[in-house]
Amino acid sequence: MFSNKMNYHDYLHIDQLLGCQELESERIGRKAHDEMLFIVVHQVYELWFKLILTEVSSVLEIFAQDRIDEKQMDLIVARLQRVVAIQKLLVDQVGIIETMTPLDFLEFRDMLIPASGFQSLQFRQLETVLGLKRENRLLYGQAAYEQSLKPDQRSEMVALEGKATLFERVEKWLERTPFLKMRGFDFWQAYKNTVENALKRDIEIIDQNPVLGAEDRARNKTMLEGTMASFRALFDEKEYNQARSAGEWRLSYQAVHAALLVQLYRDQPALQLPFRVITALQDMDEMFTTWRHRHALMAKRMLGSKVGTGGSSGYQYLRDATDRHKVFQDFFQLTTFFVPRSKLPKLPPEVERELGFHYSNSGNA
Amino acid sequence: MFSNKMNYHDYLHIDQLLGCQELESERIGRKAHDEMLFIVVHQVYELWFKLILTEVSSVLEIFAQDRIDEKQMDLIVARLQRVVAIQKLLVDQVGIIETMTPLDFLEFRDMLIPASGFQSLQFRQLETVLGLKRENRLLYGQAAYEQSLKPDQRSEMVALEGKATLFERVEKWLERTPFLKMRGFDFWQAYKNTVENALKRDIEIIDQNPVLGAEDRARNKTMLEGTMASFRALFDEKEYNQARSAGEWRLSYQAVHAALLVQLYRDQPALQLPFRVITALQDMDEMFTTWRHRHALMAKRMLGSKVGTGGSSGYQYLRDATDRHKVFQDFFQLTTFFVPRSKLPKLPPEVERELGFHYSNSGNA
Amino acid sequence: MFSNKMNYHDYLHIDQLLGCQELESERIGRKAHDEMLFIVVHQVYELWFKLILTEVSSVLEIFAQDRIDEKQMDLIVARLQRVVAIQKLLVDQVGIIETMTPLDFLEFRDMLIPASGFQSLQFRQLETVLGLKRENRLLYGQAAYEQSLKPDQRSEMVALEGKATLFERVEKWLERTPFLKMRGFDFWQAYKNTVENALKRDIEIIDQNPVLGAEDRARNKTMLEGTMASFRALFDEKEYNQARSAGEWRLSYQAVHAALLVQLYRDQPALQLPFRVITALQDMDEMFTTWRHRHALMAKRMLGSKVGTGGSSGYQYLRDATDRHKVFQDFFQLTTFFVPRSKLPKLPPEVERELGFHYSNSGNA
Amino acid sequence: MFSNKMNYHDYLHIDQLLGCQELESERIGRKAHDEMLFIVVHQVYELWFKLILTEVSSVLEIFAQDRIDEKQMDLIVARLQRVVAIQKLLVDQVGIIETMTPLDFLEFRDMLIPASGFQSLQFRQLETVLGLKRENRLLYGQAAYEQSLKPDQRSEMVALEGKATLFERVEKWLERTPFLKMRGFDFWQAYKNTVENALKRDIEIIDQNPVLGAEDRARNKTMLEGTMASFRALFDEKEYNQARSAGEWRLSYQAVHAALLVQLYRDQPALQLPFRVITALQDMDEMFTTWRHRHALMAKRMLGSKVGTGGSSGYQYLRDATDRHKVFQDFFQLTTFFVPRSKLPKLPPEVERELGFHYSNSGNA
Repeated sequence: MFSNKMNYHDYLHIDQLLGCQELESERIGRKAHDEMLFIVVHQVYELWFKLILTEVSSVLEIFAQDRIDEKQMDLIVARLQRVVAIQKLLVDQVGIIETMTPLDFLEFRDMLIPASGFQSLQFRQLETVLGLKRENRLLYGQAAYEQSLKPDQRSEMVALEGKATLFERVEKWLERTPFLKMRGFDFWQAYKNTVENALKRDIEIIDQNPVLGAEDRARNKTMLEGTMASFRALFDEKEYNQARSAGEWRLSYQAVHAALLVQLYRDQPALQLPFRVITALQDMDEMFTTWRHRHALMAKRMLGSKVGTGGSSGYQYLRDATDRHKVFQDFFQLTTFFVPRSKLPKLPPEVERELGFHYSNSGNA
Repeated sequence: MFSNKMNYHDYLHIDQLLGCQELESERIGRKAHDEMLFIVVHQVYELWFKLILTEVSSVLEIFAQDRIDEKQMDLIVARLQRVVAIQKLLVDQVGIIETMTPLDFLEFRDMLIPASGFQSLQFRQLETVLGLKRENRLLYGQAAYEQSLKPDQRSEMVALEGKATLFERVEKWLERTPFLKMRGFDFWQAYKNTVENALKRDIEIIDQNPVLGAEDRARNKTMLEGTMASFRALFDEKEYNQARSAGEWRLSYQAVHAALLVQLYRDQPALQLPFRVITALQDMDEMFTTWRHRHALMAKRMLGSKVGTGGSSGYQYLRDATDRHKVFQDFFQLTTFFVPRSKLPKLPPEVERELGFHYSNSGNA
Repeated sequence: MFSNKMNYHDYLHIDQLLGCQELESERIGRKAHDEMLFIVVHQVYELWFKLILTEVSSVLEIFAQDRIDEKQMDLIVARLQRVVAIQKLLVDQVGIIETMTPLDFLEFRDMLIPASGFQSLQFRQLETVLGLKRENRLLYGQAAYEQSLKPDQRSEMVALEGKATLFERVEKWLERTPFLKMRGFDFWQAYKNTVENALKRDIEIIDQNPVLGAEDRARNKTMLEGTMASFRALFDEKEYNQARSAGEWRLSYQAVHAALLVQLYRDQPALQLPFRVITALQDMDEMFTTWRHRHALMAKRMLGSKVGTGGSSGYQYLRDATDRHKVFQDFFQLTTFFVPRSKLPKLPPEVERELGFHYSNSGNA
Repeated sequence: MFSNKMNYHDYLHIDQLLGCQELESERIGRKAHDEMLFIVVHQVYELWFKLILTEVSSVLEIFAQDRIDEKQMDLIVARLQRVVAIQKLLVDQVGIIETMTPLDFLEFRDMLIPASGFQSLQFRQLETVLGLKRENRLLYGQAAYEQSLKPDQRSEMVALEGKATLFERVEKWLERTPFLKMRGFDFWQAYKNTVENALKRDIEIIDQNPVLGAEDRARNKTMLEGTMASFRALFDEKEYNQARSAGEWRLSYQAVHAALLVQLYRDQPALQLPFRVITALQDMDEMFTTWRHRHALMAKRMLGSKVGTGGSSGYQYLRDATDRHKVFQDFFQLTTFFVPRSKLPKLPPEVERELGFHYSNSGNA
């Protein structure tokens, strides 16, 4: 029926696992106590990265279908939320490294040169799988980022770059949304008017705010006028694609509309889970940003303006990557165009019906 | 358009809020530094309790409808998850109290007698709103629990006890589930066979486990035979109601079946959110348990076996309440009867159809 | 100077590390997605256990000296606090397991039988190194706990049980405290009077507490009279050793006095770090208790009253071990005998001088 | 003996406290459910701010003494660590706000205009008490920052700016350190040589790092040469004061030397607690930075590039303040000049003696 020999120790490969901590400082006869902390912390990161990659890849597979089985929507949300739960641990874990004082780190730091966290293959893969494009990567030195990897890993990364990313799959999924034009209901025209009024009000706010000086008022108005322009671009495909090639947007014209619709009408039964998907993607993006920021602070504290063991300023790199390596920026940007639910164009009954359930005696729920 | 006079300070009643910290030790001229910590921590708890009560009450209102609008399912989940997020803070907050050493607490402890955390009206209300019954409450001294409250608060509590609780509303909602007997599909008979086989296997497991001694083996088998008996009771209304009046179950016969169905077939579109609701209720119950446990440890650490300021052993009370005051125990107990998804009776297509969406071109959503 | 070939990937043995995750469900051709989560979570636990063992062992070594170099006091505190920081992660990590639903766990649970977390050698070692005695261990089945380990691991454990534990080292260190009787100052007589008055007041408190019923009043008084008796025992070596062999205390007569002194006069420069040491030991004990409790809740949720994969009720075992496996109970118990600082017997100047620094121009530092 | 009328409810001013939540949306008849969350979260922040102010002020008082009683060193550390523990909650609390979706926030956002978090008096006070100087504050609009406060609060702030800050007190305390020149031991000359060699090695590292391109190599070398220059400035009072007036340093020449000494020789008994003080100040600074960063992300997510209710981009302000409003930057910067403990100049025995305890039979510890 089942193998009686199964035991915790062998099942988890404990011997192999606990054989991976080899202190360089011990090897060369100048043992530094805190190197064990340093090694374990990084290995734990790699184990979590492997799990995150497993979860993200499984979500990617679901999205790869031409048509997602509704039964899997909850699964997508659950797995993305699991990734976010793990990321929270990754952030807190930085606090463990900080129980090591700079002076204790210096005891073995030189021995690790030129090894560096930049060389984590799994983290590179994760960034790529999520949708970070080679051209958007911060340069590591002058060479392409993969130069920091081992030869065989480079080809692996290049191959991976050829595959569809989570960003692209989500984009395609959004584009397929059938609710954008439904039964001839012209949502967009109505919505456009609504938003323009909202933005006009924001300008009034600025004009009426007593504490603002002329300069600040001007700055804000310029900002808002930019917002209105970019909003108009949202509904002019040609303009949008210009803004998009200028890097202001990344999602396709269709996808960005769908993302807006899902978030604005998220209480419709058929949109409740798609809304959770978008929220989970934002959470994931935000947690990576938070992790990079905590990491940058830690590097600064550990080394001041010393160079990292990789021969480059870890602090600078991590700080710059904090925003630069975000993938789902558009979702955050979209909130600029939200209006209060009370002001949303009302959906016609026949559209609402399309978005609900129809089981006999819908008593439950 | 809007009041220009609106400002942060008045809007949040800061003066009033920051006027609530009156150190008793200062009043009587023996100022103890840490009393400010003590007061602020408890006031923050009361603010969070108020928010939790607001969220739980709003959920209760939604459940109060004879038929819940599907559009509000996501709202129920979101608000319950918000409560859980707040509870995590409540648990961590115990760590703040522990930055006060027992010796520093003793500086003002005597001055607070006989005041006590037992006297928090909001927490009592919260327990009652969730569904804790008077008869299940741990006695505080000999008197009924409300004796620790102020006279006017007692009547308020008694009135509250007359109202429908979250437990009861959830129970009614579950009883209304239309999926228990659908299109003559006899789920239960099929399921019963499946579970009995699973339990039989558990007994084999015990028999075959080499490390177990005869006594332990016997203990486990007795436990499992009890499980099988209680499982059979699940499908015999008369037996179930006996077990229920014996306190082994709290949910009604109908409700417990619905809860099982929802959890077993949670991937069906119409059951995905109901499943999230049940999960959130479990999370909430578990977090209160965790909070009570951390609280008990802290009390022990602060006072050893001294009596609490209320004149009773805080540690003992909190420890005993940890399990005793749980409300949604049944949901945890139900997992005993789960079987692997792969072994679940398959739903007939016509039932599956009932549980899905039917919008034109169901591309994805 | 340094090996130019050093790189992150080889230094951390990434290939070996990421080769340790072998899904049993995949091996037998019924892949269960969540088994990866299950494996990674347990392996991360083992890595942290290894780090905790490293830190605790290093502290044990410092304590092993006949006379501890004052320069290492801060190191002891720092490393114990590091362990506590790691334990916080261990507790939060339980939340990751809970992202797996019971139904998903059942997909592969049977395949792991009879493997079990009880078989973690490192956790057993940790318990023993801290000071958990074989006779105080909760029985696992009928057999001695090490029966759950592999043959070669059993001898390892037995050998370890022969070595000095952290508890014993700390006890010896406390016994060596030179401040118990200093320059003929009879601290204890003075303190005894103080405490007895304090306990008398606690009895008054109970008598005067309006909300207490006769029965509760009686119960509390009995408890307090027991406290007074045990307090008197604190200062009668013969009585104390009786109470000690009855299991009411674990520390030696000398050590318990020293622990009290350190906590009561912790602001004396020479006692500030010893106080931090005792506090850190309490934190560590409390965090293990918290981890066991969260773990028990999770087991209950995952399996209801099903038996664990080891063939025993994980919930029951973890719940009972929560208190039973504590090591530094005495420190928590001691707070029973604290009195407000304002009431502490004042130290004579010559004793205070002994406890301070004497560098020329003691401006501050 | 004690007031029998004391009870939890009155002691904590619960009625007054729970009377502070007045929903503007309810007042004008368009109740928005999430406004309660919004109010409670901000009020909890204000309560914690009050506690932090209490703790920081008490530490400030201790530092205000011409000569700090060694007995209070542990107290300083304990209270600063308490502030850090609270700050961790403040950061996690941002997650509670994020349980409110942008759409729900918009339901009442307009009603709050022009109220804004910028108007929190306590947070301003906190920044000032810690040592943030008016001239280093980010401008809020064009007007001086206090324009966002109420008239009477402005004078309060200006008065506060006249008082000694924590930064200044810590600086004076460091300047008083008697260990800088002790018994004619010329620490600095020896240390200077050591560090210059260390920095030279860093340059070699760059030259030998294979992955670095010429440009990156140049950039890093320039950075390091700057480091060496600024290091030399550390030991040339005239140069240092130039760098200081250029804003590269904030601490006085004496203080920065003392801070270095304390961190490098932190294991000396007399320096163990001063080291903890400096570490706690860094933790506090870092946690405020982390809080601002999380806050900025949340603002971005909630509003996109909409203006905040205060009429200015909350995201922009918070982002820029993240680094700009740091107070104890110098401590982080100092690590640049650390060398491995093994390479530190050895202290002569007579100096070591000065830094230790001398109680008869120093067995304990």
